[in-house]
Amino acid sequence: MSSQDVQRPVCIIGLGLIGGSLLRDLAAARHSVYGYNHSTSGARTAIKQGYDVTDDLPAILHRAEEDNALIVVAVPMDAVASVLDSIQEHAPSCGLTDVVSVKTEVRQLIVERNMEARYVGGHPMAGTSKSGWENSHTGLFNRAAWVITYDYAAECEARGERIPAEWENIFADVVRMTQMVHAEAVPVRVANHDAAVARISHLPHVLAETLAVVGDNGGILAQSLAAGSFKDGTRVAGTRPDLVRQMCETNAPALVQALDEALELLQDARESLASDKPSIAALADAGFRARTRIEARSGARKESVSPVKISSRPVLRLHPGAPNWVAQLRQTESLGGRIEIF
Amino acid sequence: MSSQDVQRPVCIIGLGLIGGSLLRDLAAARHSVYGYNHSTSGARTAIKQGYDVTDDLPAILHRAEEDNALIVVAVPMDAVASVLDSIQEHAPSCGLTDVVSVKTEVRQLIVERNMEARYVGGHPMAGTSKSGWENSHTGLFNRAAWVITYDYAAECEARGERIPAEWENIFADVVRMTQMVHAEAVPVRVANHDAAVARISHLPHVLAETLAVVGDNGGILAQSLAAGSFKDGTRVAGTRPDLVRQMCETNAPALVQALDEALELLQDARESLASDKPSIAALADAGFRARTRIEARSGARKESVSPVKISSRPVLRLHPGAPNWVAQLRQTESLGGRIEIF
Repeated sequence: MSSQDVQRPVCIIGLGLIGGSLLRDLAAARHSVYGYNHSTSGARTAIKQGYDVTDDLPAILHRAEEDNALIVVAVPMDAVASVLDSIQEHAPSCGLTDVVSVKTEVRQLIVERNMEARYVGGHPMAGTSKSGWENSHTGLFNRAAWVITYDYAAECEARGERIPAEWENIFADVVRMTQMVHAEAVPVRVANHDAAVARISHLPHVLAETLAVVGDNGGILAQSLAAGSFKDGTRVAGTRPDLVRQMCETNAPALVQALDEALELLQDARESLASDKPSIAALADAGFRARTRIEARSGARKESVSPVKISSRPVLRLHPGAPNWVAQLRQTESLGGRIEIF
Repeated sequence: MSSQDVQRPVCIIGLGLIGGSLLRDLAAARHSVYGYNHSTSGARTAIKQGYDVTDDLPAILHRAEEDNALIVVAVPMDAVASVLDSIQEHAPSCGLTDVVSVKTEVRQLIVERNMEARYVGGHPMAGTSKSGWENSHTGLFNRAAWVITYDYAAECEARGERIPAEWENIFADVVRMTQMVHAEAVPVRVANHDAAVARISHLPHVLAETLAVVGDNGGILAQSLAAGSFKDGTRVAGTRPDLVRQMCETNAPALVQALDEALELLQDARESLASDKPSIAALADAGFRARTRIEARSGARKESVSPVKISSRPVLRLHPGAPNWVAQLRQTESLGGRIEIF
């Protein structure tokens, strides 16, 4: 185990697209990793493929407790509360993180159970319209942003309290785990995360579904003529509706605000198109400028000479517990930057 | 020249993405094809690449008239009227088609000039967010739907008049031209075309621009977290705003109707998300079903055994001028089907 690796075994609860892909990546890196799948047949498939997997939740949590493993909660939102209850019962001293796409509600369940001192939230921005163990694969997180929350540290600091060393260790290990799967750890507080994903993840689902329905209303002729712009614009409408509901409904306040901004733009465009001199100049110009800015800033870019893609996110190397480190997290967050642990 | 080829030379006016790609494909098939580019430097680039291109519009139209060429109007909407005037002056007996993405306004310009008996409208569903000769390439139309309008024939029939044989010849040649570039000719009347593209081409642009602006409003953090769903959903917002304006503004009535359907769905989703029990069930379910239906019906599919993709559009082989052929076009249109000329 190198000092860049997560310093304890990893126990993953829930082996869908995200949990399954994480298990595969960590196993491929020969890290000690084991998992639990709710479905017996799903667990059996993973076992046949050579993974250390079970469908016995109490047993795997006992094992995690004995190992002092890092627990990753990778179940859908509606199963998080009962998994947390099981963790309290069977693995009362393990550190834990999660990969749920909305953070306010998970954090509330954590606070209600007094688990804040051992919890660091997470969210890899690596979903696709596919789900389940059968779609999981190695490399899913390559170069993806992996949000890491640090509200507990910020609150300790605000209260003038010392951040417990064990929380700092868990934070460092969660960051190391994301590094092991080649993701980019982006520190973000819960409320800021939920506001951002409402715009860039949940609103896209709502608009894709709307476009799919309006296109479908055009009947078989419209479907026959649909080409690139329609297919790109509706792709995520192929996501299982229950997964979309869990994301959008648990982030309703932030999504309503993003939707209100969208509705205002669309209503203005509609009025302007319905006038005597139809125009969509304002929205077309603003949309083009926004898309150009986003393309320039986000994700990976290529250096002009080298064929290697490098991240366009600024990087901060930090040591949890060092003086001022929470202020450094805040600064990195404000830049959408990434952190590395040294 | 085989009987499957267009039976006359082709003269393309305007060498952007569509006109340029058509020129390249026909030249690659060794068909007699020449073109005009408004920009002298653009024309020079194409000439250097070995194409038969000029920046002298009257000269190329005289040549088309002498050759009895099929003229393809491939300029932006705002240049169509003046090109039609030039055609009337310099190539008064050539058949013509166009590739403009909205058909009502082009047809109106044709009717005003009494050019209906030699005009067959067209629209290849093959745009990308890129434009200009420099982005044109062979193979752009491979398997794309290429709409062919036939309102003139339908109106002759409704009036109990015989369709002129020369119009039927032009129609057949336009279909043959689309076959030569491996597109699929879909017969559609003007009003039905414009209503369909409002849903599946113009609304996607409006929604992509809206999403880009709302995402951008989230600042640098939201941009850093943007992943697949946002990038797919905003891709066509990278289209040049003047091109979006020409499409959307010339099709304003149909687009306003599609927008109103979208606004109603979004408003309902917004209310339902803002309620005490936030829900997006109705839209998530409807969008998923619509997307699944569209995916099943549109575009190419693979046979289970063969690696070759085949079209999922039903095909009708017809002979323009044969008894009942306009009724066959209507039937094919109602199925979103394609035609082949034999």
